[in-house]
Amino acid sequence: MILVVKSGGESALPEWRAHFAECAPDLELRWWDDPSLDPAAVDFVLVWDPDPGRLARMPKLRAIFGSGAGVDGIVADPDLPRHIPLVRCVPPEATQRMGEFVTWAVLSLVKDARRMAIAQSRGVWDYFEAPFAAAERTVGVMGLGAMGLRSVEMLRALGIPVIGWSRTRKDVPGVETFAGADERDAFLARCDILVCLLPATEETRGLLDAPLFSRLPHGAGLVQVGRGVQQVVPDILTALDSGQLSGVMLDVFDPEPLAADSPLWSHPRVTVTPHVASLPSRRERARYVADCIARLGRGEPLPNVYDPERGY
Amino acid sequence: MILVVKSGGESALPEWRAHFAECAPDLELRWWDDPSLDPAAVDFVLVWDPDPGRLARMPKLRAIFGSGAGVDGIVADPDLPRHIPLVRCVPPEATQRMGEFVTWAVLSLVKDARRMAIAQSRGVWDYFEAPFAAAERTVGVMGLGAMGLRSVEMLRALGIPVIGWSRTRKDVPGVETFAGADERDAFLARCDILVCLLPATEETRGLLDAPLFSRLPHGAGLVQVGRGVQQVVPDILTALDSGQLSGVMLDVFDPEPLAADSPLWSHPRVTVTPHVASLPSRRERARYVADCIARLGRGEPLPNVYDPERGY
Repeated sequence: MILVVKSGGESALPEWRAHFAECAPDLELRWWDDPSLDPAAVDFVLVWDPDPGRLARMPKLRAIFGSGAGVDGIVADPDLPRHIPLVRCVPPEATQRMGEFVTWAVLSLVKDARRMAIAQSRGVWDYFEAPFAAAERTVGVMGLGAMGLRSVEMLRALGIPVIGWSRTRKDVPGVETFAGADERDAFLARCDILVCLLPATEETRGLLDAPLFSRLPHGAGLVQVGRGVQQVVPDILTALDSGQLSGVMLDVFDPEPLAADSPLWSHPRVTVTPHVASLPSRRERARYVADCIARLGRGEPLPNVYDPERGY
Repeated sequence: MILVVKSGGESALPEWRAHFAECAPDLELRWWDDPSLDPAAVDFVLVWDPDPGRLARMPKLRAIFGSGAGVDGIVADPDLPRHIPLVRCVPPEATQRMGEFVTWAVLSLVKDARRMAIAQSRGVWDYFEAPFAAAERTVGVMGLGAMGLRSVEMLRALGIPVIGWSRTRKDVPGVETFAGADERDAFLARCDILVCLLPATEETRGLLDAPLFSRLPHGAGLVQVGRGVQQVVPDILTALDSGQLSGVMLDVFDPEPLAADSPLWSHPRVTVTPHVASLPSRRERARYVADCIARLGRGEPLPNVYDPERGY
C-alpha cells in the first residue's frame, strides 16, 4: 500500500518514513511531487494543502488524511473527491497539546508575558504588578469539541472560572454553557478572556470583528487558536487602541505565514505564534494515520471524518 | 496606630493608603523616609529591604511585615530586633499566583516560548514542532511549602507527571517525594524540568551550580523562582552551551534589578522575568497585613512568622 505525503515538505519525508517504519512497516511512503509516482497506485495521502485537482486524479484513493485538526485547506480544493473519507488529525496528543497551549496563552495574557518579552529584548528591568491572578478572570471558551473541552478542564483545574459557548448546546458538568446566536451576547458579556477554538466554516468567517469585541467587557483579552479567516485584523488593532481589548494572542492567520509587513508583529499587546497550538509531533501523527489504516483493513469506522453539512 | 511603609517607594504610598482605608481605616500610614516621623511612635512596618539599623530605632514596634514571601532582605539587617515577630507575606493569592506562574513557566519551556518571542521581535515566521507535550515531561519541584504544593497540584491537573523534593520529608498524596541530601541525586535524575521554590538560606546559597545540573537528564529545563543567590550564573551559561540545560526561566537574580550588562538578557534560551512570580497585588497584601494586625489586637497567633532556626 502506498501513502503519499506532502506535509512538512520533501525534507520531512525521511522523518515520516522513520516514524511509519515503527508503526506501519508495510506501508510504502512516497513524496507528493515524486515524478515517478503513478497516481493510480496511491492508496492514501497525508496532506495539509493539496494542489487543487491532484487528489481527483488518484482513482484508487481510499482515505485522505489531513495533517491537522482543521481540513479547510483540503476542502478548498474544488475537485476534492467527496466520496472518499477525509480524516481530521485529532490524536489524543492534539487535544492535550491544545489544552496546554490555551492554558499557556491565558496565563501569558494575565501575567502580561508580552510586556516581559519586550522588556527582555531591550535589556530593561521593567517591574510591574499584574492587576489580577488568573483565578480572578473569567475565561470563555468558544467551541466545545474535544480540544475545547480539554482546555476547559485544564483552566478549571487551575482555579480559573470558565464558561463555554457552542453552536449547538453542549452540557459540560460544572460549567455554565451557552448555545447558538441567541445566547452569544450574554456569553460574551461575561468573558474577561475569550478563547476561540471554532473551526473554519462559512458561519465563523470574520467572526472576531468590532461588533463582537464591543460585546466583551472593556479590557478583555483574546486567545485565537481557531482559524485565521475568523479574525478581522483592523478591528483587532482598533479595539487594542481603544482599550476595549487589553491583549491578544494569535496563533492563526490568513494567509499563513503572516506577512512580513503585518502591524501585528510589532504591536506591544499582540503575541504572534506560528500556528503551533495543537500540532502533535510527527511520530504521534504517524501512529494516528497507521491506526486509521489498520481500522480500514479491519472494516472498522474511521474517527473524526469531515462532515460537509457541519463544515468540519 | 502607625504603620510605616517602604514597599514600592514613596510613589506607591497613595495606593497603599487607598487599600488600607478599605480594610483598616483606623491605621495611620506614613512613608519610611518621612522627616517628621517619630520612630518611637511606630507600631508596624511594611518593608522589603529596610536600611540597616532603622528598625532597631523603633522601640514600640510590635510586628515587622515583609512585603513578600521571602524576608532575606530584612534578616540581612545586622541590627534587626529579633524579639519582634517578622511576618512573611503569604496570602492565599500569593500561592495561587505562584502556582500560575510556575505552570506558565513550565509550559513556556515546553512550548519554547522564548524562541517564539525572539522570532516575533524579528518579524520572522519561525515554524517549529515542539518535541514533547508537557504531559510527556516529568517536572520536579524543589520546595514543598504552600507555594510548592499549589504548583504541584496545578501541574498534575494538566496531566503533567510531577515529583517533589524537600529538606525534611513531606507526604503529598499521589506524588512521589524525596527528602534531604541523601535522596537529592535520585530526585534530580528524574527531572526533565526542575522547578526551584526554595527559600534563601545558608544551605541553598549557590545550590543551582554545575554539579547539580550534571545530575539532571541531558537537555533538562530549569524554572528558578526561589532566590537569586541560589544560582551560579556562569554555570547556567556553561550548561546551556553544552546542551545539558535546554532552557531556563529566571525570575530572581542577585542583585536585583539584573545588571544591564548581564549576558542573561540576550541569551536565546534564557527567559528573564523581573521577580513577578508570586507577588500578590497591593490590595491583597494590605488585606493580609490588616488581618494580621487585627489578630494581634485579639491576642491571636500570627501566621508565617520567620523562624531563625529554619532560616525562613
